[in-house]
Amino acid sequence: MYRNPPVPPERISKIQLKLQDLHVEALIFLDIKNIRYLTGFSGSDGALMIGEKQKLLLVDGRYTNQAKKEVGNIEVAEYQEKIDGIEAALSDGRVKSAGFESSAMNVSSYLKLKEKLKAVTLNPMSDEINAIRAIKDEEEIACIKNAAEISFQALTAICNLIKPGAKEKDIAIELEFRIRKCGAELVSFPTIVATGANSAQPHAAPGSREIENGDIVMIDYGAVYHGYNSDETCTFIVGSANKKQKDVYSLVKQAHDRALEAIKPGTQCREIDRIARSCIEGGNLGNYFTHSTGHGVGLDVHEAPRIADKSANILETGMVITIEPGVYIPDLWGIRIEDMVLVKEGGCEVLTKVPKNLTILQ
Amino acid sequence: MYRNPPVPPERISKIQLKLQDLHVEALIFLDIKNIRYLTGFSGSDGALMIGEKQKLLLVDGRYTNQAKKEVGNIEVAEYQEKIDGIEAALSDGRVKSAGFESSAMNVSSYLKLKEKLKAVTLNPMSDEINAIRAIKDEEEIACIKNAAEISFQALTAICNLIKPGAKEKDIAIELEFRIRKCGAELVSFPTIVATGANSAQPHAAPGSREIENGDIVMIDYGAVYHGYNSDETCTFIVGSANKKQKDVYSLVKQAHDRALEAIKPGTQCREIDRIARSCIEGGNLGNYFTHSTGHGVGLDVHEAPRIADKSANILETGMVITIEPGVYIPDLWGIRIEDMVLVKEGGCEVLTKVPKNLTILQ
Repeated sequence: MYRNPPVPPERISKIQLKLQDLHVEALIFLDIKNIRYLTGFSGSDGALMIGEKQKLLLVDGRYTNQAKKEVGNIEVAEYQEKIDGIEAALSDGRVKSAGFESSAMNVSSYLKLKEKLKAVTLNPMSDEINAIRAIKDEEEIACIKNAAEISFQALTAICNLIKPGAKEKDIAIELEFRIRKCGAELVSFPTIVATGANSAQPHAAPGSREIENGDIVMIDYGAVYHGYNSDETCTFIVGSANKKQKDVYSLVKQAHDRALEAIKPGTQCREIDRIARSCIEGGNLGNYFTHSTGHGVGLDVHEAPRIADKSANILETGMVITIEPGVYIPDLWGIRIEDMVLVKEGGCEVLTKVPKNLTILQ
Repeated sequence: MYRNPPVPPERISKIQLKLQDLHVEALIFLDIKNIRYLTGFSGSDGALMIGEKQKLLLVDGRYTNQAKKEVGNIEVAEYQEKIDGIEAALSDGRVKSAGFESSAMNVSSYLKLKEKLKAVTLNPMSDEINAIRAIKDEEEIACIKNAAEISFQALTAICNLIKPGAKEKDIAIELEFRIRKCGAELVSFPTIVATGANSAQPHAAPGSREIENGDIVMIDYGAVYHGYNSDETCTFIVGSANKKQKDVYSLVKQAHDRALEAIKPGTQCREIDRIARSCIEGGNLGNYFTHSTGHGVGLDVHEAPRIADKSANILETGMVITIEPGVYIPDLWGIRIEDMVLVKEGGCEVLTKVPKNLTILQ
């Protein structure tokens, strides 16, 4: 049982108000982070049915007691098979039409449920709760700030290990240990420590490669605090940097800075992506910036909004997003600079705390 | 990039032989562990299309280079949106009928794909690869044994920390650190360290509770080695055990031992569950054994077969399964004893190495 910031009851009552617009009697939530957002339940699996007057959390036997302690005045029921639990909840509630989270139900379960509940209309529901979750309240922002602070303390504590002869995986292990010791309940994702040519893979897993003088060391890491994630990437150079490394670092930093400067409520997310991307393209390295510029962060490490080429999202006050341009030159090295920021009136506040100027570790 | 045991090419050719029986021209795999099993790709997202002559791995930009290095003679293509990548692969291959992993595609993607590919028949495919993966080859068994050995070494190394005053989460953090230092690329799942009344929740997350004399300490943990998991639960008592603790431990141990004795190729999995469950029921604690007796372990911590009441699986040589009966008395404490075993001709071999007799830590 992880601690949660208090869950405001309005989260569920807002959902209940949407039932009529959606023309359904109940909604079935299946995304476990959405369920945590709405109820405070911190287990790894379950389903949540919300009707006009009903709030029912379905969990398996591992979580029954925990759920009852975590969710306050929401009814808890136990299932052996989730699909049977959902079927029973809809039948018992005499529900004739239900929306469900179509991006969190697999086709196999869907086909079974349709077969079992022939008299019930099942409507795939778009991910509108994502838009709600994208805007963080004060409690949530406090958790994310704490997660970023923990990450910073942890990286600072292990920075002296980043030197010639050190193995990627040993740095990753020590960093994750330190993140936990500094107060995180978990790490946000398996830490990336990619050195030398390995850093040319944006999502390399840390291996046995030993750092050499002149290496790039890319570290992508995060902490979880009360369920909320941080996400940050630092790219260091060990010993001394050559001209190409300095030039590309400077270009990526420029892309990062310009994107940050452009952030404010009302700006289109794809515009932020365009600004970062055109910097990199200006250095003729556009082909090596192989991912989008950023994403929202919260209960999920990746959530709405998307800071990408084809994103339809618009920045709003209270969103927490990453800005993470990168250049990856195959078989040579890669550089990514990632900060996590809070969108505020007129601009943004950087929440991650490691300075992003070129840092050569001696 | 994590190391993999070599992927025998027969894994894909066996799938190709099934195309005719399934009356489709291609199969789309979406479960990332199935993709790893078939190709060796160790990234976190992708899709795999297998046709009579075609083997195409689809990944996003983060993984293109890594995938090319990992998958040998399988073609690699990059997508921006997975659904668009699948659509393009099916269109380019002029595929008119395709099976897909229905338990690994969400309804939202399915509806989009159906809309985009009106001329293609999409057949939900049952999880027959699960049955193939349930039987491990020698290389896979070696990896799982290594994972179990790492877990054992790590727990042995931190056992002296389990004493009055120690916090659950500090034990979990130290154990995970040690698992990684002993050679695991990751831990199999967030380690459970549940003490006192917290152990009454089968899947409690470690918190700030400090161990007291007379406490039960339940530790559920595992290591990942070359992608393969171990899974083991040890329940210790600190200081001295009372009669009820000893009696329940003895009952759970009996359930565990009898289930182990019954394991052999040809036995129904539900029969193994019945044997363990009837032991617990014999002590009038059946209501407190709230989960199934076990599950297969491999690239996933939970995979086929299921050792459960309603399981239709039959044990076969080469399966690796857990046996993990437990009793959870709400608000008092819980006891679970879990070993991971390899099904062999005439019986089984226990792969997890911590002795499971009642251990009172002084």
